[in-house]
Amino acid sequence: MKTVYFDNAATTSIRDHVIDKMSDVMKLNFGNPSSTHSYGRQSKSLIELSRKRIASYFNVSAAEIVFTSGGTEADNLVLRSAVRDLEVTEIITSKIEHHAILHAIDQLKKEYDIDVTYLDLDDYGDVDLLQLETLLQKDTKQLVTLMHINNEIGNILNLKKVAELCKANNALFHSDTVQSVGHYKLDLQEIPIDYLAASAHKFHGPKGVGFAFLRKNSGLRASIFGGEQERGLRAGTESIHNIVGMDEALAISYSHLDTERSHIKTIKSYFIKQLQSIFPDVKFNGQSGDLEKSTYTLVNVCLPIAAEKAGMLQFQLDLKGIACSKGSACQSGSSQSSHVLSEILDEIHLKRPSVRFSFSSFNTKEEVDYVIEVLKEFVEK
Amino acid sequence: MKTVYFDNAATTSIRDHVIDKMSDVMKLNFGNPSSTHSYGRQSKSLIELSRKRIASYFNVSAAEIVFTSGGTEADNLVLRSAVRDLEVTEIITSKIEHHAILHAIDQLKKEYDIDVTYLDLDDYGDVDLLQLETLLQKDTKQLVTLMHINNEIGNILNLKKVAELCKANNALFHSDTVQSVGHYKLDLQEIPIDYLAASAHKFHGPKGVGFAFLRKNSGLRASIFGGEQERGLRAGTESIHNIVGMDEALAISYSHLDTERSHIKTIKSYFIKQLQSIFPDVKFNGQSGDLEKSTYTLVNVCLPIAAEKAGMLQFQLDLKGIACSKGSACQSGSSQSSHVLSEILDEIHLKRPSVRFSFSSFNTKEEVDYVIEVLKEFVEK
Ligand SMILES: Cc1ncc(COP(=O)(O)O)c(C=O)c1O
Ligand SMILES: Cc1ncc(COP(=O)(O)O)c(C=O)c1O
Repeated sequence: MKTVYFDNAATTSIRDHVIDKMSDVMKLNFGNPSSTHSYGRQSKSLIELSRKRIASYFNVSAAEIVFTSGGTEADNLVLRSAVRDLEVTEIITSKIEHHAILHAIDQLKKEYDIDVTYLDLDDYGDVDLLQLETLLQKDTKQLVTLMHINNEIGNILNLKKVAELCKANNALFHSDTVQSVGHYKLDLQEIPIDYLAASAHKFHGPKGVGFAFLRKNSGLRASIFGGEQERGLRAGTESIHNIVGMDEALAISYSHLDTERSHIKTIKSYFIKQLQSIFPDVKFNGQSGDLEKSTYTLVNVCLPIAAEKAGMLQFQLDLKGIACSKGSACQSGSSQSSHVLSEILDEIHLKRPSVRFSFSSFNTKEEVDYVIEVLKEFVEK
Repeated sequence: MKTVYFDNAATTSIRDHVIDKMSDVMKLNFGNPSSTHSYGRQSKSLIELSRKRIASYFNVSAAEIVFTSGGTEADNLVLRSAVRDLEVTEIITSKIEHHAILHAIDQLKKEYDIDVTYLDLDDYGDVDLLQLETLLQKDTKQLVTLMHINNEIGNILNLKKVAELCKANNALFHSDTVQSVGHYKLDLQEIPIDYLAASAHKFHGPKGVGFAFLRKNSGLRASIFGGEQERGLRAGTESIHNIVGMDEALAISYSHLDTERSHIKTIKSYFIKQLQSIFPDVKFNGQSGDLEKSTYTLVNVCLPIAAEKAGMLQFQLDLKGIACSKGSACQSGSSQSSHVLSEILDEIHLKRPSVRFSFSSFNTKEEVDYVIEVLKEFVEK
């Protein structure tokens, strides 16, 4: 059967070269990086080379990169330690962050005496930066956490602006950059951000590995305790093959960035045009219809399909071999509707089916044509 | 150069078949298990099949297995949630547990109002079970955490006895079984334990993956918050290849258990005899010299070598391609001496070099001969 994978914001395929590299590491470098003998030193050096190379893309030092089991853990590490160890008493965020942020905050609220403020959103899902500026005047110890690129609607935050605002007002700033690392270059000497979180499986690397950037002298401490791995910031024997795989995937992504971006952008813009031509009433959720204001990797589209028929849409797409997502992948398992869309859509559009299509460099225009054809058929039937 | 890997308690090599399986999964099953489309369902089904098969070895239900990023995380998960969610106010443990237990407890002590009691140890490093029985009479909410097999000295705890003692006294019982899973079969219908922790890289599986067994209705909750993975007990996109690799490694370990055990036991017993013949004054630390009272996978030997010469021993072994460990791998990076040995050795023996040699089914008697030869040469020089 023909299959089209348009769910790259949920996860990406792993590049063959990355898999080969990981297999080699598993075969040849099994020593425990904490061991001082030659097997251990070899493993240690692989990890440290990866750390150094990853750090270089962000123009930071290797010691500022902490490997984790993924984006979720990295987000949790930052938020928990900021509250516990840096005595943050107010977290400023928005209701359309990923659950790794929102649920971590909910938990911290149960455990600590903190205030949580959710910034206002406009109809496009952009946060109110003027409100943020006002809130930052307060004299409490604040942490701002806002994602760089929204995983559902693709909105891009002006990271630099927010980082400078936070810095000017002595607030800490964390960003969940899980959807941007590997797709956007970030120079963290230019952007005075304190922390960020990334995950390898969003840029054709392995699942179950990610990293946090913690700026030097961050004062953050571990959430998982045990051995002295990661300079005491994250105990547990390192997943060497996963770390090396992440490094390799990131290196390939950044070295092909321009060509891959322009390829993917062409696909997105073609998809938007085709959708508009068959559905004159189509609505793009958030900023995802705007090529400048949203990531080139996804569109989130609210289709003018009657509620009675809507339930069949996902089923039909799946039947035709088309993988895409209503809301984010983390939600599609449960039948709940997206917490992001419910914040920004009106009643009418909330009732219509919204679908996120997200792209990678492995996708083609022909796949767009196929998906458009299937959608057309579905509507006309 | 000839190399001998006698550091299998620090970590093991990954079986070729496991690597192949993991590569296949990475190539063919990259969908996000939380996605409802076919790519996602395939990944989900792989994880659930692995969970089911792993559960079967312990005679428990799949729902009682929670995948983690390793043994350290599994230990932390259990301890933290027992204190936070089950309102445990006293933890009973021993000073020779792994740091994943000891440091997690240290941290919990800082955050919560709990008492920690360390059981007395005899000269062999065995915990005082009579003292445990007395302590369990108290009317506080207690959690006992004692490892099944000590990673440095190999002592075996009578898991069943301790579990029954705890059960009879209404205390919770967790065991770090990182050194025993894959090497010993545990029937958890026979052993009324509440929780255990395991790690794949100790049984020829990948690094960075493990699991916790949490008995049904444990009441434990997550430590990492976000998506609904692992039934809400552990958020974060699953490391599918690592999970499948762990499952495969465990299946091979348990299906070859008897032959591999007898092979490794022969090596250990031969090693002990040869050591005794060249060093009449050799001392085996803990129970590790006793084939019945310690695991078949390791010996920890205190060599009658003068302090002046001792510093050169590790260097010499490394030079000769012999990988082994003073203390545990997690410590060998730092030059500290082992926290386990400092609890049980007298001054004289603490000054002498102690080395842990730990074996796998890939080791041979010839390797033992080589190591013995190198040791002999070192002493005579
Ligand atoms: C007894 C014991 N517990 C816990 C761990 C930690 O497991 P992991 O390395 O998977 O975090 C180890 C080994 O490192 C161990 O030997
Ligand atoms: C924006 C965002 N943050 C965090 C995560 C979680 O990362 P991981 O799956 O590596 O835990 C995801 C994806 O799942 C994401 O899209």
